[in-house]
Amino acid sequence: MSTIVNRRDLDFLMYETHKLEQLLETDRYGDYDRESIEAILDLSQSLAEDIFQPFAGHLDQNEPKYVDGKVEIIPEVKEALSAYKEAGLFASGYDYDMGGMQLPWVVHQVLSSMFVTANTSVSNYIFLTQGATNMLNTCGSDELKAKYMPNMVAGDWYGTMCLSEPQAGSSLADIRTKAEPQEDGSYKITGTKMWISGGDHEMTDNIVHMVLAKIPGGPAGVKGISLFLVPKHRVNDDGTIGESNNIALAGLNHKMGHKGTTNCLLNFGESGDTIGYLVGGENQGLANMFHMMNEARIAVGMAATVIGLGGYLYSLDYARNRPQGRHLTNKDPESPMVMISEHADVKRMLMTQKAFVEGAQSLMLYSARLLDQQATAQTEEEKTHATLLLELLTPICKSWPSEFCLEANKLAIQVLGGYGYTREYPVERYYRDNRLNHIHEGTHAVHGLDIMGRKVRMADGAALKALSKEITATIGEASAYADLSSYCQDLGEAMQSVQSTLESVSTAKDPSLALANATIFLDAMGHVVIAWMWLKQAVAATKGQEEGKASDAAFYRGKLSACRFFFRYELPKALSKFDLVASLDDTCFNLEAEDFIGH
Amino acid sequence: MSTIVNRRDLDFLMYETHKLEQLLETDRYGDYDRESIEAILDLSQSLAEDIFQPFAGHLDQNEPKYVDGKVEIIPEVKEALSAYKEAGLFASGYDYDMGGMQLPWVVHQVLSSMFVTANTSVSNYIFLTQGATNMLNTCGSDELKAKYMPNMVAGDWYGTMCLSEPQAGSSLADIRTKAEPQEDGSYKITGTKMWISGGDHEMTDNIVHMVLAKIPGGPAGVKGISLFLVPKHRVNDDGTIGESNNIALAGLNHKMGHKGTTNCLLNFGESGDTIGYLVGGENQGLANMFHMMNEARIAVGMAATVIGLGGYLYSLDYARNRPQGRHLTNKDPESPMVMISEHADVKRMLMTQKAFVEGAQSLMLYSARLLDQQATAQTEEEKTHATLLLELLTPICKSWPSEFCLEANKLAIQVLGGYGYTREYPVERYYRDNRLNHIHEGTHAVHGLDIMGRKVRMADGAALKALSKEITATIGEASAYADLSSYCQDLGEAMQSVQSTLESVSTAKDPSLALANATIFLDAMGHVVIAWMWLKQAVAATKGQEEGKASDAAFYRGKLSACRFFFRYELPKALSKFDLVASLDDTCFNLEAEDFIGH
Repeated sequence: MSTIVNRRDLDFLMYETHKLEQLLETDRYGDYDRESIEAILDLSQSLAEDIFQPFAGHLDQNEPKYVDGKVEIIPEVKEALSAYKEAGLFASGYDYDMGGMQLPWVVHQVLSSMFVTANTSVSNYIFLTQGATNMLNTCGSDELKAKYMPNMVAGDWYGTMCLSEPQAGSSLADIRTKAEPQEDGSYKITGTKMWISGGDHEMTDNIVHMVLAKIPGGPAGVKGISLFLVPKHRVNDDGTIGESNNIALAGLNHKMGHKGTTNCLLNFGESGDTIGYLVGGENQGLANMFHMMNEARIAVGMAATVIGLGGYLYSLDYARNRPQGRHLTNKDPESPMVMISEHADVKRMLMTQKAFVEGAQSLMLYSARLLDQQATAQTEEEKTHATLLLELLTPICKSWPSEFCLEANKLAIQVLGGYGYTREYPVERYYRDNRLNHIHEGTHAVHGLDIMGRKVRMADGAALKALSKEITATIGEASAYADLSSYCQDLGEAMQSVQSTLESVSTAKDPSLALANATIFLDAMGHVVIAWMWLKQAVAATKGQEEGKASDAAFYRGKLSACRFFFRYELPKALSKFDLVASLDDTCFNLEAEDFIGH
Repeated sequence: MSTIVNRRDLDFLMYETHKLEQLLETDRYGDYDRESIEAILDLSQSLAEDIFQPFAGHLDQNEPKYVDGKVEIIPEVKEALSAYKEAGLFASGYDYDMGGMQLPWVVHQVLSSMFVTANTSVSNYIFLTQGATNMLNTCGSDELKAKYMPNMVAGDWYGTMCLSEPQAGSSLADIRTKAEPQEDGSYKITGTKMWISGGDHEMTDNIVHMVLAKIPGGPAGVKGISLFLVPKHRVNDDGTIGESNNIALAGLNHKMGHKGTTNCLLNFGESGDTIGYLVGGENQGLANMFHMMNEARIAVGMAATVIGLGGYLYSLDYARNRPQGRHLTNKDPESPMVMISEHADVKRMLMTQKAFVEGAQSLMLYSARLLDQQATAQTEEEKTHATLLLELLTPICKSWPSEFCLEANKLAIQVLGGYGYTREYPVERYYRDNRLNHIHEGTHAVHGLDIMGRKVRMADGAALKALSKEITATIGEASAYADLSSYCQDLGEAMQSVQSTLESVSTAKDPSLALANATIFLDAMGHVVIAWMWLKQAVAATKGQEEGKASDAAFYRGKLSACRFFFRYELPKALSKFDLVASLDDTCFNLEAEDFIGH
């Protein structure tokens, strides 16, 4: 079996659950049908399994090195990225007008995620390049686009995002990188950027950094941030590579995971002029950066999900082939051992992984589809509805898999026992890689504040109403099936808990106290959304049982079991979290720094 | 501040909470008083901080290597272990009659745990040697003891435990290592042992392996297992080192954590005779191994706890010194940044760590004290009571910190953000090191089966009654304080949930189904026990507020906040788990292997 993807499940999610075929009837995506998409996914799966997956462990153990101011990376990385480029897959993330394939975002996500599971560290270079290119396309001037985009779209030049600085991680208001206007309209960039993935290497002719910086004299805080395109090498008017743009690699960060991706501390303008070019308007940097934020955050959630998937599939395969022990009631030590997938607790650990990973994957596809709906909406109302849902769901997309698919990775190690704890098996690498996803693209806490402080209230609660409407529709559909009725009731009650919790919290006199347990709310609300995703899948699986192939019987049975598992084992956890949040508990909020250890 | 130990908290736990002074009045421990114990802990702390802690990160990044059939380890490891030996600390784990210090086990645990936090990988060699020595002392013949023990007690020779084999991890019934009786009373050992920590190295003149093997013709399964002492080098009658005992190092395992401890695959009797000596009776191997099981399992729980402590203290220190962002209600970006310990979610993450780590530490000291009570009991009744409590609490001691102090380590990384994810800071190493503790000394699932299948039922439920009695006594004491009354009620109700859950489960017709969710019961029951530990601490803190020093005000306030946190944020999670276990849910139990992905 493949250990990076379950194509049967992808088909189930794309078509039976989320009705991708409806999207394929739109003008925008009309060039694709189920068959052509299958061919693209076949190609991607082969490339991911044959070229990316085999050296993922080797790369993890042989991370990029800093030698004489340059980065050395094992050659397999460039070879894999070249194969990706040769296959034309860089184009999967772009529209026709950029020279891309204009795939539905759902399909782009699914395709990309196979490479994430196969070799996360290598996939990062692709993801960052596509993100920078799309940002440039959305916000940049025609001149900048003409000069830089073709090489980026082709995968000849790579891109990065340069936001954080050593003294300012989550607090972008405090960045110090400076952009001084020059007479020719360009800017001199000076400052230090931290945590820059793909920030330097020798694999491409150029690297295009999208850099947040402040123009002197502008407003304080985030309102004074602008976005700049800053190339590693300057580009001549004829498009050829010019002289160095003086971005010094000050050092590499050595991470617990994602070890194959260079992660850099970069100094701009220290050893000579570093020239940057304004992207979008002055002081519009944050807004421009946020243009691509939903896409980027869903992609991070998707990465967290499919790293969880890698552990799930690997541990499932292992459990079905590793004999050890006997059934509890069998006291005969001379009887043959059973596969460990026969043991109740191993089943529980596999089912937990399945419920988390496939639940999250459903949400990722649903949300990617909302991006497609934004792009294909026939009416303003339809577009607004998709946008509201996206705004509300994005913090959950980013955060829920980061928490719970990491938990899945923990369990994958446990299924393998001592072997799982060694670097000879991939599951510990998945666990290390996935731990990053709580931290980047907005920390877990930042998303808690985002959903509870902004998203549930936005437009007079319109986003939450939009979600309620969708959930109610699913409950309506599920009510037709007697076996699903208890889930309908549980999900309805859970949504009422969301509402009543928010009402309780709104009575807080201190707005900071109201948000003190926002992270807990985020996790709990995520559980409600994933329960909804499982109910959607249960409806599809029930229909599949009635109408589908006999050979799919085990598949649909598994889906219905996972739904049952999530509602019985997981959803109750959310309810006790809502009670806590609603109580406006101030235990942590009131702590003084010296209370922790007494001084 | 120290980042390996909070001595104020240790004093609180040892004396104010668990009344160590009562133990010091017994004959067995009468040579010690609070002052002399403080001096021993001072010495240990200095050694741990000055010699062990500084190279922990370096060791993690420079793990032992297999070169020409031998193990190469960075020299700092042997230097640190020599310093430990020179300080006489190997003797901390032994009684006077073995040439040891006969410290209360509580103190031995506390002392040892500082070295675990400082440098887990190095501390493993000490722990394993002390365990093997105590096992030999308990079960070995006078002749064997005379020949091997003095060098082991002195720390000149090290020890290991050789249980697992490649095909038999948790399933000891299936080990294949063979011990064939020789005419001289010794045995020829042949077979392969896996996961042997400290299994080979060149740091000592000899390594004494305690090996489980089967004597041909014996009973099948675990009833045919015997215990053997198998030295790396044979020992001449005059005590000098003789020829090689032909134990071949077949390879090193490369783990995610504990990277500084050699972990070996060993072949016995492959390249020449490997001679072993029976320890205890034939076919009594498992019983003999289990003699030291409570001690070993509590020590693993303690290790999980203090690895959690290391992350907690480091992230607390970081949070109190790292400026970033502003209070939510402060919209002025030009105002100074605050320390991140001011942010509500950072407080929550620090408090979660505190509640988990200090709650677990209280349980470890309580349980170590029960071992001391076994050794000092004046009556059979007193001894039986301590034994029953120990039997019931040991699976929780081993498992609860493995789960929840790992969670603490996850949060420590989060407090440091991107920095926490790099190997330049110790918190990611703690997270990697701690992940092992779910797996060794009985997996999480094994302890679930142990507590639910055996311990709660043993002696007609006498162990559970003993625990109820103790908890009721604490509730009685706490009831005197109005501020603690809600916790008394919550804890009483939680204990009733334990009882009613077990009653519900006992109605199951299939005994395997009754145990299908045993791991969930284990976690939930652990929460009840830790809540009890917090109530005990709250009583002590309340008394401290009334009688103690004014300078301890913040310390006691923090303890009471942590108690409140645990009861409000954590204990409710256990209750929904009990509901699930009581329902005898068979969702996972009934799964077939093909249900997971449909084939």
